Amino acid sequence: MNIAIIGAGNVAWHMALALQTAGHTITAIYSRTLAQREALASKLTQAKAIASLDLRHVVADVVLIAVPDGALAAVAGEIKVPPATVVAHTSGSQPLEIISSIEDAAAGVFYPLQTFSKSKPVDFAQIPLLVESQDETTLQALKLLAQSISSKVEVVGSGARKQLHLAAVFACNFTNHLLGISQQLLQEANLPKELLQPLIQETIAKATQQPPFSVQTGPAVRHDDNVINAHLHMLQEQPQWHEIYRLLTLSIQSAAKSA
Amino acid sequence: MNIAIIGAGNVAWHMALALQTAGHTITAIYSRTLAQREALASKLTQAKAIASLDLRHVVADVVLIAVPDGALAAVAGEIKVPPATVVAHTSGSQPLEIISSIEDAAAGVFYPLQTFSKSKPVDFAQIPLLVESQDETTLQALKLLAQSISSKVEVVGSGARKQLHLAAVFACNFTNHLLGISQQLLQEANLPKELLQPLIQETIAKATQQPPFSVQTGPAVRHDDNVINAHLHMLQEQPQWHEIYRLLTLSIQSAAKSA
Repeated sequence: MNIAIIGAGNVAWHMALALQTAGHTITAIYSRTLAQREALASKLTQAKAIASLDLRHVVADVVLIAVPDGALAAVAGEIKVPPATVVAHTSGSQPLEIISSIEDAAAGVFYPLQTFSKSKPVDFAQIPLLVESQDETTLQALKLLAQSISSKVEVVGSGARKQLHLAAVFACNFTNHLLGISQQLLQEANLPKELLQPLIQETIAKATQQPPFSVQTGPAVRHDDNVINAHLHMLQEQPQWHEIYRLLTLSIQSAAKSA
Repeated sequence: MNIAIIGAGNVAWHMALALQTAGHTITAIYSRTLAQREALASKLTQAKAIASLDLRHVVADVVLIAVPDGALAAVAGEIKVPPATVVAHTSGSQPLEIISSIEDAAAGVFYPLQTFSKSKPVDFAQIPLLVESQDETTLQALKLLAQSISSKVEVVGSGARKQLHLAAVFACNFTNHLLGISQQLLQEANLPKELLQPLIQETIAKATQQPPFSVQTGPAVRHDDNVINAHLHMLQEQPQWHEIYRLLTLSIQSAAKSA
């Protein structure tokens, strides 16, 4: 397929390369920022870096809008596409409807459930790709496109996708922050961060195999108040971390009670 | 070495098997609970299941106390050992001093930094073992014993070990709880929990390679208030999770500001 991509950030970058590797042609890369659109276009064999959201003269079966969630409505209001073009956004948190007013477009969603950094290659084949459309032909086109780069394609509606995105914030963004707190605590004691790696790996492995609430360990679930109070005391000078400790301890104890 | 083990829980279980595999002899297993001490002793070639903490007639170079943190002081007050026996506890949160009053004993710590479940085998070679003693000879003995089962042996004092244990609560216990919340949110939307696995794996891989605070992604660090407010709204009926979301979002934003 011929594909135009709106955006030149992390998602656009990885998706463009994966689609080209799968045999598709990226015909255009739009970004407001000259350096960004040219950097990505230069990595692709046939893509033009474009500065206008009027795509009526661009050759494209599918237009993928991979811009920050907050910029999606503005792009949808401005973009112009040739008749009957499939236009899909790549956001986890935004509904299909945010782009359904685009004239001449068959609207859809094409959401890769992964965290991307430009510097780190990803294996797209293992990344779940969630597609959605009100229109059966559009849905089939997006499914085919998704299956050409991923072995994990699911049709998921806007409501479930929003819930999935919320779940991902807990499992990814919040977990990352806890790992950050943990590393800072190690640093304060001049301990190497590698010490905790086997424990983190085992925690994730366990939580993958069994429901995490059923394999919960540690002072909170044991109601070990001496240890809990000693830990809270150690966090006295970091009030936010103190409060996170207190609250997560209570939540672990609630989950154990209702299990 | 000849080793007696006090306790027959998860830590005692995995440690006894690892030590025996490394060529040591487990001579005795103590537990208050008949079924527990006999179950573990029956897995070992020469161990007697014993019901008394008077070990003066037990053959043991080293006694390892692997009981819950809250039971440690009581065991230390009751145990009797032959003269000059090395006695070490396996707790992350408790100081060396909690067992230093044991008569005739050379006190130490032998702390495996891992989360154990009886049903899941672990590769002890990859588990950090933290040892401590005030006495150089005892410390060397514990180091040798540790090196016979693990390639990651560190001498860490009680203060640093306590901080490490606190860091482990964030990285392991709290992370597990967040993964539990995340799975429940998926279930509510009838989504398969496998969907989030690649994202979780990538999150951990990233946080291992770079400081987690520097690779933070998601609505909190982007100050994407629309998404944050939508998520808080979705958590209205789970007040504890709502509060965890709010607090972790603030903490992510504070960490980004001070970075």
